[in-house]
Amino acid sequence: MGEGAIAIVRLSGDEAVQIADRVFRSPSGKQLAEEQSHTIHYGHLIDPGSNETIEEVMVSLMKAPKTFTREDVVEVNCHGGLVAVNRVLALLLKEGARLAEPGEFTKRAFLNGRIDLSQSEAVMDLIRAKTDRAMNVALGQMEGKLSKLVGELRQALIETLAQVEVNIDYPEYDDVEEMTVPLMIEKCTWVRDEIDKLLKTSAQGKILREGLSTVIIGRPNVGKSSLLNSLVQENKAIVTDIAGTTRDIIEEYVNVRGVPLRLVDTAGIRETEDIVERIGVERSRQVLKEADLILLVLNNAEVLSEEDKRLFEAVEGMDTIVVVNKTDLPAKIDLSEVAEIAGDNNIVTTSLLEEEGVMELEEAIANLFFTGTIEAEDMTYVSNARHIALLHKARTIIEDALAAAEAGVPVDMIQIDVTRSWEVLGEIVGDTVQEGLINQLFSQFCLGK
Amino acid sequence: MGEGAIAIVRLSGDEAVQIADRVFRSPSGKQLAEEQSHTIHYGHLIDPGSNETIEEVMVSLMKAPKTFTREDVVEVNCHGGLVAVNRVLALLLKEGARLAEPGEFTKRAFLNGRIDLSQSEAVMDLIRAKTDRAMNVALGQMEGKLSKLVGELRQALIETLAQVEVNIDYPEYDDVEEMTVPLMIEKCTWVRDEIDKLLKTSAQGKILREGLSTVIIGRPNVGKSSLLNSLVQENKAIVTDIAGTTRDIIEEYVNVRGVPLRLVDTAGIRETEDIVERIGVERSRQVLKEADLILLVLNNAEVLSEEDKRLFEAVEGMDTIVVVNKTDLPAKIDLSEVAEIAGDNNIVTTSLLEEEGVMELEEAIANLFFTGTIEAEDMTYVSNARHIALLHKARTIIEDALAAAEAGVPVDMIQIDVTRSWEVLGEIVGDTVQEGLINQLFSQFCLGK
Repeated sequence: MGEGAIAIVRLSGDEAVQIADRVFRSPSGKQLAEEQSHTIHYGHLIDPGSNETIEEVMVSLMKAPKTFTREDVVEVNCHGGLVAVNRVLALLLKEGARLAEPGEFTKRAFLNGRIDLSQSEAVMDLIRAKTDRAMNVALGQMEGKLSKLVGELRQALIETLAQVEVNIDYPEYDDVEEMTVPLMIEKCTWVRDEIDKLLKTSAQGKILREGLSTVIIGRPNVGKSSLLNSLVQENKAIVTDIAGTTRDIIEEYVNVRGVPLRLVDTAGIRETEDIVERIGVERSRQVLKEADLILLVLNNAEVLSEEDKRLFEAVEGMDTIVVVNKTDLPAKIDLSEVAEIAGDNNIVTTSLLEEEGVMELEEAIANLFFTGTIEAEDMTYVSNARHIALLHKARTIIEDALAAAEAGVPVDMIQIDVTRSWEVLGEIVGDTVQEGLINQLFSQFCLGK
Repeated sequence: MGEGAIAIVRLSGDEAVQIADRVFRSPSGKQLAEEQSHTIHYGHLIDPGSNETIEEVMVSLMKAPKTFTREDVVEVNCHGGLVAVNRVLALLLKEGARLAEPGEFTKRAFLNGRIDLSQSEAVMDLIRAKTDRAMNVALGQMEGKLSKLVGELRQALIETLAQVEVNIDYPEYDDVEEMTVPLMIEKCTWVRDEIDKLLKTSAQGKILREGLSTVIIGRPNVGKSSLLNSLVQENKAIVTDIAGTTRDIIEEYVNVRGVPLRLVDTAGIRETEDIVERIGVERSRQVLKEADLILLVLNNAEVLSEEDKRLFEAVEGMDTIVVVNKTDLPAKIDLSEVAEIAGDNNIVTTSLLEEEGVMELEEAIANLFFTGTIEAEDMTYVSNARHIALLHKARTIIEDALAAAEAGVPVDMIQIDVTRSWEVLGEIVGDTVQEGLINQLFSQFCLGK
């Protein structure tokens, strides 16, 4: 939706070229079917029924198998207005095409074996990336870095299983347990440690992918709106996610040193200063509970009040940065008291009025979530909650297998665990995954991808 | 701005291919410069400084002169997310490209002589078209229909001028006045009549292009919001124009039988029912004054009040349709009184509650602006206010020339008028137009076109 210079209407499938040829007229009169793959053609779309000119277009012809979907693909580049796109769509639908489901092109790329499931998921991550780093993680995943690592783990497991089978099948080895259990322990330990390495950066990866749900709280008039505005203004790249129409803006992101902050309920903060009153309201508590980061704002020019203390109680146990604002005014707040009540939480002093301390705040935010690993972004392979959950699951099963092996459980029982962990890891790349899940995953894609 | 499956970053100019080759790596290792024109290439953009992979892309290569701008054009198709697009842009800018001004690609197409000015303007009309008919007018204009007609008029004028020169230059004809004045009268009359034909549908064309600024007024509780909702719901194609960010929705269009209604201040109507109170406010008067169409809503179940009558006074002389709503309730309104006060204005009765009468209202709207010419859409050539103004100007000058010729003014004086009208018509196609105007026209384009 929207207005752009160019819009692309994409056709994929056996009949893509045929359908395009029914409506496309090039000045040369040549059919697309006769043209070479990966060529571009100028012409008009003509309604064969009315002979009416529908659009002036450039058509990109890409013949199977070297295409996004591995099928014949025709991309119609038309003018980027709503009416133009609708006309082109309507014409192609009339001539036998059908509207793609969200994510259907990528789904076909997956079903036709061009990419695996984790690579498919990366396509959407790439489009939705909120920061440069998030994009690097998605790009790596799309190029198969995660697939390769998961593949190596699965390979190790399947080779171990094969070895066990060999040992069992050869009767001359009657000491199967002795021969195979140490091997299984060795291999499973290696796989577990590798999974641990992957999971180590997964929290970061998840934040990069999904953003850090951030809530600004504080008493009236301490500078919450100013803080919000500072964060928004100093970090130009505001990304808004739009669902369905241009009307429903659902989230607002601010890129703070590579960390995408998702500012929750910012409309509320903008419009009203009575967050404190609303703290008692169930909804506000819910918002707080779901936040990844709390920015708790205090007023340097006033003594710490009971209300302030109640706010500290409300966010206890959460990742909080205390912002003591208005350092341009004479200090009345007792900073040692703040430090005591803040505990382990970081304290930053700011004068938002004089634009002081915002850099320090941003640094504190970045440090809180990327301690010591800022440079190691290349090592972040996992960012998707589904993948993280599967890695945890596989790890648990392998731990079970290891415990069973140590406890002298028969080999065939351990084999079941190892096989199961091989399957669970396979769900990441879509090797061992159910159709229902696949449909659900691709339905979250945007239209046209 | 926004999230899509694919985004296009477009390069045009002498160095387009060279710059793309500095960052594009295809699996074959082949440079774009070596490739055939109008071909598509898969590969990656690599930052030559850091050797970092920036994006996975498809690159469309179109070499001069058969391109949109007549220059070398490289279109980088990347993933349609904000970060992806920004990365690709940043890389290309670093390698020597510069950001295009709004409309710069089309401006180059004009400056390089591929299309004339009216065709350039049609590109933007095409993108912004609100209805199918508006798009047909724009498409015709882009294909040069208006250019051709204007060209014929200018040709007639220049031939006449040439003929006059010949007559003047040949001393054997000393009856120059006698020989040339009738010719000039004949030709100028023809040009004037042709301009009249063009102008005849221009009001329609302008409405198609710009939409019909529509205001719904009425006392509280007569059903203004219901009317708005009916119009919006029954006509799915709501087009929203977005300026700069996704936040500022500036206009809302409803497609009523091909007529784009621009619903003015609809937010106000949605939120408040006190339009009548606000009628005294200057701003509301201004909105009314600028409206092309007034929908004045009355309540069938109440007698015509003084307030209703004041509304009729407020919209006197404007294109108004009177909507007598709530026919589901017992009639108390005196329809003959309404008819009397409504004068020539159309009256439609509706029960918006029972969804009755909306079709009739839509018909009334369409008839009001497209009387008898609905089928003649192919005859609508002029829609742009600039073109309409220039046609009127040329017509006035030709009328002056005709009057002067009739009054026996010397031929060389009339020549000046004819030359001037030739120039004015030339401004439509950009033949005789100033650079400042050209810059201003293209600055209204969207980025990337």
